[in-house]
Amino acid sequence: MTTRYADRMEGVKPSAIRQLLQFGADPTIISFGGGYPDSSLFPARELQAIFGELLAGPGEVSLQYTHSTGMPKLRQQIAQRMAADGIVCEEDQVLILQGSQQGLDLAARLLINPGDLIATEAPTFLGALIAFNTCQPGYLAIPMDEQGLMTDVLEQKLKEGQRIKLLYTVPDFHNPTGITLSLARRQHLIQLANQYDFIILEDSPYREVRYQGDKVPTLKSMDTQGRVIYFGSFSKILAPGLRLGWSVASAEITEKLGLLKLAADTQCSTLNMAAVSMYLERHNIDDHIQTIKAQYLRKKETMLSVVRSEFPQGISWTDPDGGLFTWMEFPEGFDTAKFMLEHAVPEAKVVWVPGATFFPTVQRDNFARFSYSTHGDEKIIRGMTALAELLKKHL
Amino acid sequence: MTTRYADRMEGVKPSAIRQLLQFGADPTIISFGGGYPDSSLFPARELQAIFGELLAGPGEVSLQYTHSTGMPKLRQQIAQRMAADGIVCEEDQVLILQGSQQGLDLAARLLINPGDLIATEAPTFLGALIAFNTCQPGYLAIPMDEQGLMTDVLEQKLKEGQRIKLLYTVPDFHNPTGITLSLARRQHLIQLANQYDFIILEDSPYREVRYQGDKVPTLKSMDTQGRVIYFGSFSKILAPGLRLGWSVASAEITEKLGLLKLAADTQCSTLNMAAVSMYLERHNIDDHIQTIKAQYLRKKETMLSVVRSEFPQGISWTDPDGGLFTWMEFPEGFDTAKFMLEHAVPEAKVVWVPGATFFPTVQRDNFARFSYSTHGDEKIIRGMTALAELLKKHL
Repeated sequence: MTTRYADRMEGVKPSAIRQLLQFGADPTIISFGGGYPDSSLFPARELQAIFGELLAGPGEVSLQYTHSTGMPKLRQQIAQRMAADGIVCEEDQVLILQGSQQGLDLAARLLINPGDLIATEAPTFLGALIAFNTCQPGYLAIPMDEQGLMTDVLEQKLKEGQRIKLLYTVPDFHNPTGITLSLARRQHLIQLANQYDFIILEDSPYREVRYQGDKVPTLKSMDTQGRVIYFGSFSKILAPGLRLGWSVASAEITEKLGLLKLAADTQCSTLNMAAVSMYLERHNIDDHIQTIKAQYLRKKETMLSVVRSEFPQGISWTDPDGGLFTWMEFPEGFDTAKFMLEHAVPEAKVVWVPGATFFPTVQRDNFARFSYSTHGDEKIIRGMTALAELLKKHL
Repeated sequence: MTTRYADRMEGVKPSAIRQLLQFGADPTIISFGGGYPDSSLFPARELQAIFGELLAGPGEVSLQYTHSTGMPKLRQQIAQRMAADGIVCEEDQVLILQGSQQGLDLAARLLINPGDLIATEAPTFLGALIAFNTCQPGYLAIPMDEQGLMTDVLEQKLKEGQRIKLLYTVPDFHNPTGITLSLARRQHLIQLANQYDFIILEDSPYREVRYQGDKVPTLKSMDTQGRVIYFGSFSKILAPGLRLGWSVASAEITEKLGLLKLAADTQCSTLNMAAVSMYLERHNIDDHIQTIKAQYLRKKETMLSVVRSEFPQGISWTDPDGGLFTWMEFPEGFDTAKFMLEHAVPEAKVVWVPGATFFPTVQRDNFARFSYSTHGDEKIIRGMTALAELLKKHL
């Protein structure tokens, strides 16, 4: 038989990331591809005690169904953490999600009709495009500079009559570039949203992993009209395998996202929500985050020190204040995907994410995202040095 | 501001189940509403040992990201269990889901354009309607008798020219009626799917909870053309708070569902998948299911014995061979929702799910779903006896 799929499946295709996952399974290859946190930093011992205690208690509490919007206590705890970061909100504005990825999917379903326009940074997070594509949007790609999304370019497009339904941004330590949106640009963006009536999705899974420089206020904290939906995640500050993130939005939008959550998967894992709630109660997560930050700062310095001293001329890179990634620009005409498959994999046993896949409209071949979060220093040095040698031969 | 939501949100409304959840939180009320398993039957001690062991091991294995399609070993284990039930399949035909609810959502998104027709039993599982509604389908409601969905009525509609894109059925211990689809009807249904080119969603979360009578082969086991997508769940045989279910379909359909899964929430919880995989390896889950079945059979008998001896004339009910529910029919003109709110809650402190909400098109008021799975015998007897007294006064 030939299955007749729904029209929305036209935008749902296997991504280039797939091939990378294959390389990730090969222990002889050093992958700077996945945005994986360092698993040695997961608080496994603390979680072991917590899961042990929860599973010794009544099954009703840890293993039964619970609220589709999330465990009430965890919603309160997140609301308190958000308030400490300048986002004043109540429990009914917080929705617990299966990672912030689920928030991107639900928000698109809440807002996007086929053909509606979504503005994003170019480049942008591939997972967001994958989620949005199921709603058949168009994209308006806004370029970035060292201050992040170029809001004056966006304003020009809006003045010319382009109408967007929502804008998606990763303002803190952007994926894939590592760039942070400046305060002035944030203010401008909020003003544009109010003037041109669009919703902002503020996706900030890396926000708490800032290891240098001062915090910039969230877009959500500047939002006076309920136009910003903020997404946070425990993936980078606790562990991604728990699959827990959250959204903060107006109570009205949160209620509607909650209905979509119920339809999509009933609820998140009761056990995992109870465990994270107990972790937040028992431990000072900010102390844990301090440890993570020190490690990632050192890893970044390790990677960039090889890049600075060993990479040939003609390559530039970002030096982020937080997060997991650096973004490299190679000379025009240098295809990072082709070079990776033809040379880096066989000759240097190193992989990364070729940049083309991050561009929502016009793809550019001469960029690459390198994650410094996953490996220890020795592997970072070995992999990047081998790559430097190879680049010297070919550039 | 006024948010402009997507058109699909017109079908996404708060359900009648919401009000029930409020009652569920009141400890003075006995709820026969939720389809909750008995939490005293969760294998908490075994899971405690397993989570303890997993979290003592490398974080890489239990807390890191893994495959979006699910942990490979768990997919293999499920494929083996499916084969033992007559569904011969490979690992690449199994997709791990955030409960089978997620499968309903993803399958609708895979197949349904706005306006496409979905055939369902009338009544049917409310959660399925909630998931499907986000894709803006039409519904073709097929009545049931004691052998389940009336396939001759479906055939008549198809002969008259009605065209359906998919048919949704709960063939084993149907939700809400508890009825099992007969073998002859299953064969007829497969023949109709082949002849009239539609897909069948076989949702069978209760299948393994059969406590009397012989197993009837699954629709999937009779499927020679890759037309059936089967959904199973660990919610009723282990614990719903783990949020793990699965689908079995053709490799092609499974791959596409996997792409939608990646877009929707990246993956299920690594830790919970690893735990269930270890449970299946260490313990004989079929022994555990035997224990569950004995308990549910006794609970059913407890509930129905009160109903048989104490309920007034004019009420009929199903006597299921498995699952969690009995479905009651009250005299024409008796509104089970109104009676519950006006009398049962204040006077007998008992709630159930009024039947109207389970009908996809024309709602009928004189039905009710009672779950016997949640409470112990004493509470079942107390609640049902109080209800019987009240019904005697009003009928």
